[in-house]
Amino acid sequence: MMEGAVKIVPVKPEKPLLGKSNFDAERLITSLHSITHKKTLIIDRSLWAKLPYILRRRETLYALLQEGEREIYLVELFEVLPLQILGCAIDIGSTTIAFYVYDFLHDRVLEEFSIYNPQIEIGDDILTRLHFARKEENLQFLRRKTLDAINRELSRFPTGSIYYLSICGNTAMTHFLLGLPVNFLIVEPYVPVMKWIPLLKAEEVEVEINPLAKVFFFPLAGTYFGGDLIAGLYEVELNQKDGFSFYLDVGTNAEVVLGNRDFLLACAGAAGPALEGGIFECGVRAMPGAIESCKWDPESATIHYRTIGGLKPVGFCGSAAISLIAEAFLHGFISPEGKLLPQTLPERITTLDGERVLFLLPKEATAHGRPLYIKEGEIRSFLRSKGTMYTILSLLCEKVGLSFEEIDFFYVAGSFGNHIDIRSAVILGMLPEEALNRAVSLGNSAGKGALKFLRKASFEDIKSIIDTITYIELNVEKRLMELLTGALLIPHIDLDRFPWVKKQIEEKRRCFRR
Amino acid sequence: MMEGAVKIVPVKPEKPLLGKSNFDAERLITSLHSITHKKTLIIDRSLWAKLPYILRRRETLYALLQEGEREIYLVELFEVLPLQILGCAIDIGSTTIAFYVYDFLHDRVLEEFSIYNPQIEIGDDILTRLHFARKEENLQFLRRKTLDAINRELSRFPTGSIYYLSICGNTAMTHFLLGLPVNFLIVEPYVPVMKWIPLLKAEEVEVEINPLAKVFFFPLAGTYFGGDLIAGLYEVELNQKDGFSFYLDVGTNAEVVLGNRDFLLACAGAAGPALEGGIFECGVRAMPGAIESCKWDPESATIHYRTIGGLKPVGFCGSAAISLIAEAFLHGFISPEGKLLPQTLPERITTLDGERVLFLLPKEATAHGRPLYIKEGEIRSFLRSKGTMYTILSLLCEKVGLSFEEIDFFYVAGSFGNHIDIRSAVILGMLPEEALNRAVSLGNSAGKGALKFLRKASFEDIKSIIDTITYIELNVEKRLMELLTGALLIPHIDLDRFPWVKKQIEEKRRCFRR
Repeated sequence: MMEGAVKIVPVKPEKPLLGKSNFDAERLITSLHSITHKKTLIIDRSLWAKLPYILRRRETLYALLQEGEREIYLVELFEVLPLQILGCAIDIGSTTIAFYVYDFLHDRVLEEFSIYNPQIEIGDDILTRLHFARKEENLQFLRRKTLDAINRELSRFPTGSIYYLSICGNTAMTHFLLGLPVNFLIVEPYVPVMKWIPLLKAEEVEVEINPLAKVFFFPLAGTYFGGDLIAGLYEVELNQKDGFSFYLDVGTNAEVVLGNRDFLLACAGAAGPALEGGIFECGVRAMPGAIESCKWDPESATIHYRTIGGLKPVGFCGSAAISLIAEAFLHGFISPEGKLLPQTLPERITTLDGERVLFLLPKEATAHGRPLYIKEGEIRSFLRSKGTMYTILSLLCEKVGLSFEEIDFFYVAGSFGNHIDIRSAVILGMLPEEALNRAVSLGNSAGKGALKFLRKASFEDIKSIIDTITYIELNVEKRLMELLTGALLIPHIDLDRFPWVKKQIEEKRRCFRR
Repeated sequence: MMEGAVKIVPVKPEKPLLGKSNFDAERLITSLHSITHKKTLIIDRSLWAKLPYILRRRETLYALLQEGEREIYLVELFEVLPLQILGCAIDIGSTTIAFYVYDFLHDRVLEEFSIYNPQIEIGDDILTRLHFARKEENLQFLRRKTLDAINRELSRFPTGSIYYLSICGNTAMTHFLLGLPVNFLIVEPYVPVMKWIPLLKAEEVEVEINPLAKVFFFPLAGTYFGGDLIAGLYEVELNQKDGFSFYLDVGTNAEVVLGNRDFLLACAGAAGPALEGGIFECGVRAMPGAIESCKWDPESATIHYRTIGGLKPVGFCGSAAISLIAEAFLHGFISPEGKLLPQTLPERITTLDGERVLFLLPKEATAHGRPLYIKEGEIRSFLRSKGTMYTILSLLCEKVGLSFEEIDFFYVAGSFGNHIDIRSAVILGMLPEEALNRAVSLGNSAGKGALKFLRKASFEDIKSIIDTITYIELNVEKRLMELLTGALLIPHIDLDRFPWVKKQIEEKRRCFRR
């Protein structure tokens, strides 16, 4: 039997007999009992008047069923099996919107693609957009903008065949798309409008697909903990694991969950912009021409890099910055406090507009003819971000009395998770050393979770995740500041926590000085 | 705490606190937990965007909740208690549509009135309308006609304040109003479209009341056993009684239920037209000028009567016809076979157009200047109707091995039940003698049941009734014809079943001949 948010089921209702209760709808409902289980079957109002005719046209019909939380909706009765029944999973990130067009009949992804979130026009970071959206017309502008982009992309497919959407987005993105006010989301005590969004009809969201389609939104767990995170946890099934695991989603925000089948402890902090390359003057989003990974060869004093699309570089991604800073630290060009040490590398460490900078590429090597560099101030900002990440991990472990040693897996999600070099993250003290062999890169787990919902429609699992999560508000955690201080150094004020890094430093510096 | 399909509940959600999961919607839902019990609270989509603002305007708000089967719908949040929140119970009979405009806030009926069912234009009897409605445009015509009449009547009230409708109608009426095809309802095996009609929104029915209003339809138990019957049973609570009771609804059809808390056995037959006065040339519906009750004084050879509105007579109702025939029989003017005996009353029993008739009123005494009479053939038709009623009662008793002696109550509903003289019905053998002291006249119990739903919204009770009912299709009951033969006589071929009637006959005739 087909699983999934949409099911096409052959039905063969019993023939009506004289002297029996033989309502058309009830015979149909009875013939579907084995599929509906304990859920109530709701026959769409649009089918009622057609029912008697359709039922008498063929012995076997094909019912299109949509899964709801407590109901199953029967919205179409086909005389012949349709060729295509589609759904689409949409992960609305602040930067990109990822689409997974899914073919229910053949259980396959027809197309997977992503576009830039058009909200970027208002501002790269979420906070700018949130402030912009305080005015009702601006909120509607953002909603319309996002909706138009989604409708435009979906219009390339036979929209009449799209019967289900599964959407995940962080709390702000979800509010924008539903036109919910964010005014109380950005002031203390940071209150979102709703947590669990009831299943909607396409028209209620204004998506231009089959009018009978349903739209599922992943619920929100908190102000800084949105549906994308829930989708990610649902994908990884953190709540079904025996051992302890971390789930890290480092995008614009750093969101971390620690847990297993018994508990889920969540925490989020504004660690992100730096990690995404946002705070670097020469940093760019993961776009064509962006340096996504690089390797420093201090012997020959060259930097080997790879750009997205193999183009001439336009800037570096967060992941590349992390590698660069890690390498620079290992070789002693950066102090544990994040200071650039000019005497160690005079040819690259110099001064620009009164600030110390680390030059990476000359203007001749870039697409725009401007050099690429990292400023000392940027490194300090970055250290604050990486420190926050480490501190959140420490804090969560402390809360439940665990050491990093007891963590089985570090699931690393988000666009960051796709590219990050775990080794570099450990060298910088962003992740504990235990992550070295236990990190699992997930890619876009939020999008994958949204897609999984189309395949499984497991409302209960998602409900169980959202009901299990305990969300720790960082703003009220004094302990955070205590822990953060030590984590602002590379890798940490307490080098004993990073024996492997200590060894790397010694080896590298010995080797380099040789 | 207010009961009812609509509730106005004061709510005082907790203030949001930093570091707690404090979604606006969830705080609101939590504050309503004591009212929603096990049902899911659904906040109407139209409220979502307003929620953050409304919640911050006042400490205490008034939530308007509508009861659903498994859900409770929150559709309005008032800052001050509204002055009026209305509902309307509508009983759509083939002849009249009865309205009960109900004030939820003060638990009182504001107005109770009825209008003629405009479908009468197509035909007095349901079958004519059903055949007419086979064409889609005609079905829509009937739907529109009924809807327009309902909308017109409701427009006299503040429609924006009407938040709930409770509608009952027989199977045909329910199909017409919902625009459901009746084509398979009128041919073997007589199949209605649906039994349990999910709660609808006002717009889905096209009633012009508050767009957020819900519309409840009483479910149908069978082709000849509609929502009006279910509403009547719900009113009488037959399914909650210990002893055995009959519920009789004699309108255009004769519908009978026998049962108690353990079972409900239902049966319906086309006994009605005669009993409603429909088969009599001089019979009229219960309308101004209709003779609704009369008494025959054979000594003075006069007929004392009462008309509706005290007007000059235009015809007689079914209830009056029953009294007249009963009296004529008791005095020996009519034979047990239903023959008029001219020699017993030569001044009244004469011949018209070659058929024997019983003259009642001369043309001078009537409003239209035509005499009133009953034809012998009409009496024979009537005997078929009354015989059917008695037979249905016998058949149901036989099915469960009961005698009439064991029946505690005979609940008589319908317009018929308002006026019928139980004594006359027993004399004619329409009801068994046991009904004499155990009959309870209910009036319009269907309408009252629909009203009760607004007051209690007990979906479970109605579900339990519909789930308990076993419907016996008369068309397949050969035993009916066997039983009917004896019941075609007045009062019955077996006079020992009617000892009291036997005594009445003897007394009357002795007294008259003296």
